[in-house]
Amino acid sequence: MGSFRGHALPGTFFFISGVWWTIKCLLKYACKKQKRTSYLVSKTLFRRIEISEGITVVCMALIGVLGEQFIVGGPHLSLYDYKEGQWIQLLSWHHCTMYFFFGLVGVTNILCFTISSLPTSLTKLMLANALFVEAFIFYNHTHGREMLDIFVHQLLVLVIFLTGVVAFMEQFTRSITVELTRTSLILLQASWFWQIGFVLYPPSGGPAWDQMDHGNIMFLSICICWHYALTFVIIGVIYAFVTWLVKSRLNRFCPSEIGLLKNAEREQESEEEM
Amino acid sequence: MGSFRGHALPGTFFFISGVWWTIKCLLKYACKKQKRTSYLVSKTLFRRIEISEGITVVCMALIGVLGEQFIVGGPHLSLYDYKEGQWIQLLSWHHCTMYFFFGLVGVTNILCFTISSLPTSLTKLMLANALFVEAFIFYNHTHGREMLDIFVHQLLVLVIFLTGVVAFMEQFTRSITVELTRTSLILLQASWFWQIGFVLYPPSGGPAWDQMDHGNIMFLSICICWHYALTFVIIGVIYAFVTWLVKSRLNRFCPSEIGLLKNAEREQESEEEM
Amino acid sequence: MGSFRGHALPGTFFFISGVWWTIKCLLKYACKKQKRTSYLVSKTLFRRIEISEGITVVCMALIGVLGEQFIVGGPHLSLYDYKEGQWIQLLSWHHCTMYFFFGLVGVTNILCFTISSLPTSLTKLMLANALFVEAFIFYNHTHGREMLDIFVHQLLVLVIFLTGVVAFMEQFTRSITVELTRTSLILLQASWFWQIGFVLYPPSGGPAWDQMDHGNIMFLSICICWHYALTFVIIGVIYAFVTWLVKSRLNRFCPSEIGLLKNAEREQESEEEM
Amino acid sequence: MGSFRGHALPGTFFFISGVWWTIKCLLKYACKKQKRTSYLVSKTLFRRIEISEGITVVCMALIGVLGEQFIVGGPHLSLYDYKEGQWIQLLSWHHCTMYFFFGLVGVTNILCFTISSLPTSLTKLMLANALFVEAFIFYNHTHGREMLDIFVHQLLVLVIFLTGVVAFMEQFTRSITVELTRTSLILLQASWFWQIGFVLYPPSGGPAWDQMDHGNIMFLSICICWHYALTFVIIGVIYAFVTWLVKSRLNRFCPSEIGLLKNAEREQESEEEM
Repeated sequence: MGSFRGHALPGTFFFISGVWWTIKCLLKYACKKQKRTSYLVSKTLFRRIEISEGITVVCMALIGVLGEQFIVGGPHLSLYDYKEGQWIQLLSWHHCTMYFFFGLVGVTNILCFTISSLPTSLTKLMLANALFVEAFIFYNHTHGREMLDIFVHQLLVLVIFLTGVVAFMEQFTRSITVELTRTSLILLQASWFWQIGFVLYPPSGGPAWDQMDHGNIMFLSICICWHYALTFVIIGVIYAFVTWLVKSRLNRFCPSEIGLLKNAEREQESEEEM
Repeated sequence: MGSFRGHALPGTFFFISGVWWTIKCLLKYACKKQKRTSYLVSKTLFRRIEISEGITVVCMALIGVLGEQFIVGGPHLSLYDYKEGQWIQLLSWHHCTMYFFFGLVGVTNILCFTISSLPTSLTKLMLANALFVEAFIFYNHTHGREMLDIFVHQLLVLVIFLTGVVAFMEQFTRSITVELTRTSLILLQASWFWQIGFVLYPPSGGPAWDQMDHGNIMFLSICICWHYALTFVIIGVIYAFVTWLVKSRLNRFCPSEIGLLKNAEREQESEEEM
Repeated sequence: MGSFRGHALPGTFFFISGVWWTIKCLLKYACKKQKRTSYLVSKTLFRRIEISEGITVVCMALIGVLGEQFIVGGPHLSLYDYKEGQWIQLLSWHHCTMYFFFGLVGVTNILCFTISSLPTSLTKLMLANALFVEAFIFYNHTHGREMLDIFVHQLLVLVIFLTGVVAFMEQFTRSITVELTRTSLILLQASWFWQIGFVLYPPSGGPAWDQMDHGNIMFLSICICWHYALTFVIIGVIYAFVTWLVKSRLNRFCPSEIGLLKNAEREQESEEEM
Repeated sequence: MGSFRGHALPGTFFFISGVWWTIKCLLKYACKKQKRTSYLVSKTLFRRIEISEGITVVCMALIGVLGEQFIVGGPHLSLYDYKEGQWIQLLSWHHCTMYFFFGLVGVTNILCFTISSLPTSLTKLMLANALFVEAFIFYNHTHGREMLDIFVHQLLVLVIFLTGVVAFMEQFTRSITVELTRTSLILLQASWFWQIGFVLYPPSGGPAWDQMDHGNIMFLSICICWHYALTFVIIGVIYAFVTWLVKSRLNRFCPSEIGLLKNAEREQESEEEM
């Protein structure tokens, strides 16, 4: 994990998750707004999507755990070296534990949408748990490292912890803004993983950033804000795309009068909302 | 308390409580889902169960307080040694205070389900109070000890505090996921008590873990995550057992047609929930 | 303020407030439960009570501010000594500021129950504000003092802050348990003021407690828990008294059959609540 | 920014925002209370007001960013000096980042009230985000400065963070008291900016306050409370003015009987509220 690739990989994974959840959440919202007749169809569809999402997550987590364990120089499932009297590759075990908890999220996803008696809010709870565990492990991950290294990981912990809090809140409120807050924080986490890779292990091969320079810390504390602004742009683009998609499909399937009718209804609704 | 048994005992107590609360909470949930005709019967039953639970808790707390006071070398109810000018056995008094607050939870349980004018959410409030008090006392419990000792107790404080927060939230929301979060945290606390016993007072008689080794701390910070994952497994097993129990009893008492009818209703419900 | 009396006075004030709020809150609860016909009468009565409560609080705050300012050795409304280039009696000004904010609570009480267009939740907001301000000032009150002095004041800050949080929550939920939590914390603050007085300025004239003894700190951290348990006893006694009062008056005014009827209704209600 | 004017400018900006939001919020509340027939008209009016508010905010933010960048001695959009190997004017970039996020609030305001399918709670979310980002940046703003400088900025961070929390809560609850809490905290932030200017860069030209004097810190910790009390006075005055305005316009347009009728209704309502 102590390499550029080791940080780019989870970054890419979280980026895909973030984009995917944003699309899913906005699609649901747009479908609801349009009150389409094919609503029941899309519900079964959403259920199938959730299950395949769960399977994907479980597979990814499995690959992560196995890769971390059986890579060259990995711990190969052994935890304690009794001869030397010390722990083996604890950082790898840290990563495995995180992967394992995200695997549990996948398992919960599959179970909740297969067994109908389970409440669906359980998936949110498990996601929050996985994020809290991740934040907790990263918090205990950087004992004895240098200032800049600790700082960038602290920011990561902050972002992950906030994501966990928002995911926990989602159990109780289904507001679209809360869901988007979560996906924006997931995207932020993704791009921050990339940033950590660039700071600590520059892929250009140049020297790492000066670990003791206060200027670097002051720059990185605004840099994460710019990353956050970027996630808004990404979500905005996805929103525009999804809205266009839903509208264009609606226009193709429905006669134009109905479309106009729906527009009128929608305006009325939004006025009531105010 | 400074022994393996002193940590295994509360661990066992919390483990039994955790398992019992999980069973109760899942039974209630399953009964509600099945909308059984014998619902009124089970309500009176639940009330009786709550009262006997309260009586059990009060007895346990009393035994704990008395045992802590009148054990060989205990404080025997005296608090201050005026001759020597120092406090007597303050750690024992700490434990007694915790037991006392859990005893109050039992008393509240009895009162709330006996006197009908008391709100039942009072029991949750008292449970949250007992947990907050426990966390507060453990936080002030390890003045002047060594690094690893402090670390494992800090993790314990974190777990207890979070349990208290969740118990406090339960006053306002009756969601099954929140209740299960609480019971899983109670189980985590239980198994962590055992872990502390193994770390600080190994029952094998070998030497305690190295108090100043950073490797130990990094291992214990993932170890608590594995304990947490274990509680999910325990709750999953209990869930499977309870569901099987409720279903098998339903099939025995009701004709099969009604069972099918109920299944159909249940599916419909779960679709509405989505 | 640096005397036993200086801590016993606010303690007594908060004790009276706590007892009074507990009585008021339990009376309201009992009246609601009994669904008495004289309900409208009691509503106007409650309004009048609130207004006179506000007037009392304003007077108390005024006396506090004036007493603190014009006591022998007080600042006499001057803030900065330009000759010596230093602030005058900042601790007295700290106390005045706290009194002033509690005075604002009284003013808000009067306004909210006089002007009908003001929302009544404003009084809770102002109370929370006053408590947060009090906690903030006490937090900045003990710069440069000794360990035990700081510790007892930190506990005070913790209690006041929690009271503020609960008062803030009351804006959103009118649950009886939340209200009782607030009053119990107010009572705890009251008795803790007394405890601080006994610890730092023993009224017996003996020497103050040893400021650097860890034993004292470990004792005080369970001592505050015992104070907290005491507040439950106080609230329990008040509850028993209020219930007896409301019932006995009901029995006097209503024929016995109606009383029985009401009992039956009450039981039914409590069953529905479960 | 390191000047009196640099602190007075944002202070003035936040003061105008705070006053304006207070007026808007109280106007809405008063209109709702009066249940005026011209309600639909005022709704379209409010929408237009929101949009022009958004445009103003965007313009202000743009001016702020450009001013900060192209002022004499500013960074002129360059971030890193490759020759010297150091960052250029990071503090200016900090300010630009804050302005940018407030600009995003303006953009969201415009979009939410133009595109009807966007939820209006998005504006609250973006405001909370902007405030959290501001608090985060100020928290990382004072590395290596002196005690008093750090203290006044910490208080600023506390105020901004609390404002962010309240703005975040507003997504879920539309209570008038929560909105007023937010505007009062905005006003507090405004006047505290002024206070910082007076403390660190006295406009009279005299020497700055003694950075290491504990008396100054103890004074400033009550000073911020007095500022807070002042915001209540400001809001009270605005409330009186708005109420008078709405009533006087009502009396002019409606016959007096209707006014009396409305008064009766209002009293009834307030009784129901109790």
